[in-house]
Amino acid sequence: MDERTRTEAKRRASESAVEAVSDGDVVGLGSGSTAEHAIRILGDRVDSGLDIVGVPTSFQAREVAIEVGIELTTLDETDGHIDVTIDGADQFVGADLIKGGGAAHAREKIVASATDELVIVVDETKRADVLDEPVPLEVLPDARTTAAAAVEELGGDPILRRAERKSGPVVTDNGNLLFDCDFGAIDDPTALATDLATLPAVVEHGLFPAFADVIHVGTTGGVDIVEP
Amino acid sequence: MDERTRTEAKRRASESAVEAVSDGDVVGLGSGSTAEHAIRILGDRVDSGLDIVGVPTSFQAREVAIEVGIELTTLDETDGHIDVTIDGADQFVGADLIKGGGAAHAREKIVASATDELVIVVDETKRADVLDEPVPLEVLPDARTTAAAAVEELGGDPILRRAERKSGPVVTDNGNLLFDCDFGAIDDPTALATDLATLPAVVEHGLFPAFADVIHVGTTGGVDIVEP
Repeated sequence: MDERTRTEAKRRASESAVEAVSDGDVVGLGSGSTAEHAIRILGDRVDSGLDIVGVPTSFQAREVAIEVGIELTTLDETDGHIDVTIDGADQFVGADLIKGGGAAHAREKIVASATDELVIVVDETKRADVLDEPVPLEVLPDARTTAAAAVEELGGDPILRRAERKSGPVVTDNGNLLFDCDFGAIDDPTALATDLATLPAVVEHGLFPAFADVIHVGTTGGVDIVEP
Repeated sequence: MDERTRTEAKRRASESAVEAVSDGDVVGLGSGSTAEHAIRILGDRVDSGLDIVGVPTSFQAREVAIEVGIELTTLDETDGHIDVTIDGADQFVGADLIKGGGAAHAREKIVASATDELVIVVDETKRADVLDEPVPLEVLPDARTTAAAAVEELGGDPILRRAERKSGPVVTDNGNLLFDCDFGAIDDPTALATDLATLPAVVEHGLFPAFADVIHVGTTGGVDIVEP
């Protein structure tokens, strides 16, 4: 899939996914390049009269939503309830996702967990037979050395994510550090998710096991709608 | 136990606990009023020639250690290894602890997990037959509403910890919020620890199941040394 075909696939998947949004919905707004397509399409629908409020999953999502004129709210104001969220993923197998390429997975998981229907939009390069992408792990800066050692004990290879356009590491919107943890093929995402969550001072990991309700996969020719 | 007897019990337990420290040790320095006694006694020993380096568990521990002249280092510099840590607890049953009254439990857990021998110092008011104190839960500010709802689903009563000497909530040294979560009697601390750790955007909870190697309990008359 070349870059142009891929952008077209993302846009097509997003067009399909926003059909899940109805008048009056509280809508979780995902992060990343594919979710951005969805937010922009939602903005067009709002211009045409769709009545929604959005809960952004990141600084980036918030910025795009403001640009396209979607009214925003917070989980505190909606009593922790969201009707539908449209978000991307870095890899998926059935309902299992890896997220966190954009370092927004902690807030993405808060929003996804508060959501009735999680709609994932991806191009087909994100589809796999087994999850094997590195798992992003957000940790308190104090836990840098001990978290890396613990990931190695779990059989992973943790690489501190380095920043571009600043010296040193990427710092998340929450002020923390990130490791990209290569575990090879992940046979049991639920078990690994629990292992990672229980490490000291891990803020959030990028495994979202059994999270997706429906996945809109942009292909070269169309959209494949997967309901795991 | 009146306040004066209690202070004396804490001091006595700390005198007993610091015997676990040897020349050349990397020593984890705990937080709270009892651990502060231990740090001050360690400072006296350093004045008398004891050769150690300390890893503080909090801003407070660091401040006291500097005041009493203990050389400090970091987990990054010791390759994530600590020989012995002396820390307090808010309640204990055998080797199971509740910590976090001072909001330092995330870093305390990092340090405790990196430690060969975790030595707990308490007065006897902290001893119980079953853990039933509220469990402190540090969460990202974004997770405020959803984390409280999740704690309620687990059967707990989450109270946002309010600050004194500032308006609004207590903010941790890591920039996060705290809920004190009352679960009544906690029959299975290990199971509850896993449930709390796997909630989205929980940074760290105050349950330390099976963490203590030895507990020095200051009593009215002496010190009770418990090896669970």
